[in-house]
Amino acid sequence: MSVTGPAGFRAAGVPAGIKAGDARDLALIVNDGPHDSAAGVFTTNKVRAAPVLWSQQVLHERRLRAVVLNSGGANACTGPEGFQDTHATAERVGEALGIGAIGVAVCSTGLIGQRLPMEAVLPGVDKAAAALEGSEQAATDAATAVLTTDSLPKQAQATHPDGWSIGGLVKGAGMLAPNLATMLGVLTTDAVIDGDALDAALRRASRTTFDRIDVDGGTSTNDTVLVLASGASGVSPSHEEFAELLTTVSGDLVRRLQHDAEGATKAVDITVRGAVSEDDAVRIGRVVAEDNLVSTALFGSDPNWGRIAMALGRTPAEVDVGKAEIAVNGVTLYAGGTPVAERDSVDLSGRDVEILIDLHLGEHTATILTTDLSHDYVEENSAYSS
Amino acid sequence: MSVTGPAGFRAAGVPAGIKAGDARDLALIVNDGPHDSAAGVFTTNKVRAAPVLWSQQVLHERRLRAVVLNSGGANACTGPEGFQDTHATAERVGEALGIGAIGVAVCSTGLIGQRLPMEAVLPGVDKAAAALEGSEQAATDAATAVLTTDSLPKQAQATHPDGWSIGGLVKGAGMLAPNLATMLGVLTTDAVIDGDALDAALRRASRTTFDRIDVDGGTSTNDTVLVLASGASGVSPSHEEFAELLTTVSGDLVRRLQHDAEGATKAVDITVRGAVSEDDAVRIGRVVAEDNLVSTALFGSDPNWGRIAMALGRTPAEVDVGKAEIAVNGVTLYAGGTPVAERDSVDLSGRDVEILIDLHLGEHTATILTTDLSHDYVEENSAYSS
Repeated sequence: MSVTGPAGFRAAGVPAGIKAGDARDLALIVNDGPHDSAAGVFTTNKVRAAPVLWSQQVLHERRLRAVVLNSGGANACTGPEGFQDTHATAERVGEALGIGAIGVAVCSTGLIGQRLPMEAVLPGVDKAAAALEGSEQAATDAATAVLTTDSLPKQAQATHPDGWSIGGLVKGAGMLAPNLATMLGVLTTDAVIDGDALDAALRRASRTTFDRIDVDGGTSTNDTVLVLASGASGVSPSHEEFAELLTTVSGDLVRRLQHDAEGATKAVDITVRGAVSEDDAVRIGRVVAEDNLVSTALFGSDPNWGRIAMALGRTPAEVDVGKAEIAVNGVTLYAGGTPVAERDSVDLSGRDVEILIDLHLGEHTATILTTDLSHDYVEENSAYSS
Repeated sequence: MSVTGPAGFRAAGVPAGIKAGDARDLALIVNDGPHDSAAGVFTTNKVRAAPVLWSQQVLHERRLRAVVLNSGGANACTGPEGFQDTHATAERVGEALGIGAIGVAVCSTGLIGQRLPMEAVLPGVDKAAAALEGSEQAATDAATAVLTTDSLPKQAQATHPDGWSIGGLVKGAGMLAPNLATMLGVLTTDAVIDGDALDAALRRASRTTFDRIDVDGGTSTNDTVLVLASGASGVSPSHEEFAELLTTVSGDLVRRLQHDAEGATKAVDITVRGAVSEDDAVRIGRVVAEDNLVSTALFGSDPNWGRIAMALGRTPAEVDVGKAEIAVNGVTLYAGGTPVAERDSVDLSGRDVEILIDLHLGEHTATILTTDLSHDYVEENSAYSS
């Protein structure tokens, strides 16, 4: 059910003609209340798209009634005119729903540096408003309308025994093509929870989920994850309970992103443990995830741990090469400063790969989800916009 | 002439049987003096190969009589045994030349995590010592023996009107395959110059040459650049003159590395100007160079400046997106926060690509040399060690 699973939400996904052909490319998600608390996390890129600037602004009071999302154009690096386009889109949603534009967040994904075809976007908003439904199909239509090179809609939902739930949708081809692979996520809940608690829970959940998928280090100009709370269940969970379930649903969505990364033939989990800090563990996981030589070796089903050791050594994190251990799919290949097993003792024939780096220096752990680097990645990304 | 161009040097490159087949894989470069000042710069990777640890140690007094280099194995992550192998190699060179091992630097390149076949290396040292010559052919043999996936030997030389010269050889497939693409460089000069001045000149030259080629962000466990001075010309250049010529020869070698990067179809110069500091300019140039989405777009001959803007925004450097300009091959595509020309007005059909990013914030400039990311890169690096 995803975003329409929790009570109080309707959704739609329609073909507005932003993309060529008749693919769905505009989604609308509406919170019918009674409450309208909301929170968001956004790209850390200094180059932020117009919809990011807008949504950060309207979230100031931590209230949202609706989110409009489009694929087919990122509306990034489009100057004041691009910002006006975002504003006009929010205004049109407001008119269609009888609410103020200030209650409408906007998300866009697609090619950077081109204006959106507003002659398609604005009628598309009306069309989506007319199609709003609380059905499962409507949620799937919305999840479909935000896709770019993704191969399938990605949704998740979890229900608490106390009678409230969290649903969500996400798009992103795992940063495999950042013009396209902006991560956009919308989570909904019918729990009763105020904006500040929602914000804290989203930041906590993101830290170990949305922030820990890293396919090629690209940070989009448009990355946005929003959470909207309707309060329609009438149940007020504890902050702890809410944050836990939000982390579960976010983790589920992120796993779907990893598995749908375009061009990838491997789903790779890099776990770093024994670090002196969680930051160090994340830093090392990321540098290994982003290393093209590790990624291409995995594409070749080669457990080339020397490349992992090399990547390990170029982080600012605390590392003692004499203590570190590297294991791939359960086989320890390097320990105590020397090789301890032959590379061919590792089976890399399957899709799932687990890399374990134990630094033996401290108590901190982090897992980064990534993929391999394949011919299809190069093909996809060299051919996309031309 | 390269390393044997300056007076006082002999070289050899022989097939020792470290690699399969009969390719040359062991090189020896000897400084016959009268002086033996030397300096070196090494990888910043925390995981340093045995030959790096050894060479850093023997350079303590800034004197070297010889350098022995091998391809076919990096001797990295090989523990104390690997260090003993390096030590034994230096000892053998010392015996063959009648000098102390402390005067012998060692460089290795190849797969990480495997011991070297010492039964091939040690007789190879004797063979190389017997083959030492001051000829041009001997220098080319040495430049050939250090190659891995490089397609051709890379040498350079420049002579000062006052009668002294600097020669050099380098290997590296431009970090395109870091197990192989260790950058090893040896520079020779017959100028009269002491170790401290040599060290300062090498650091100065490296900063704008060897440190500014970045194909995929990989920093090898084995990167080493050495400079040896024989004093055989009898001429003492000023420190300024020497550093300038060293920078010229180093720049020439680095350009050869860029053009020989395996799998690359484009030679890309990224110039960042108008930065508030040189560090900022370098940081931005590097992040753009390492961005897979920029690199794959270039492989597709697509001047996708939106990807450059995205990469720009994810550095810690000071950037104002409203002021920055991006030009590709002379065509300004982005300025004042908006697109200013169509992408198809840029001709990317040739091999050479110039990306100019003007931040309009300060007076500092840097150029980073890189390449595109091609199918051949993926092929080369997924297939190499298996």
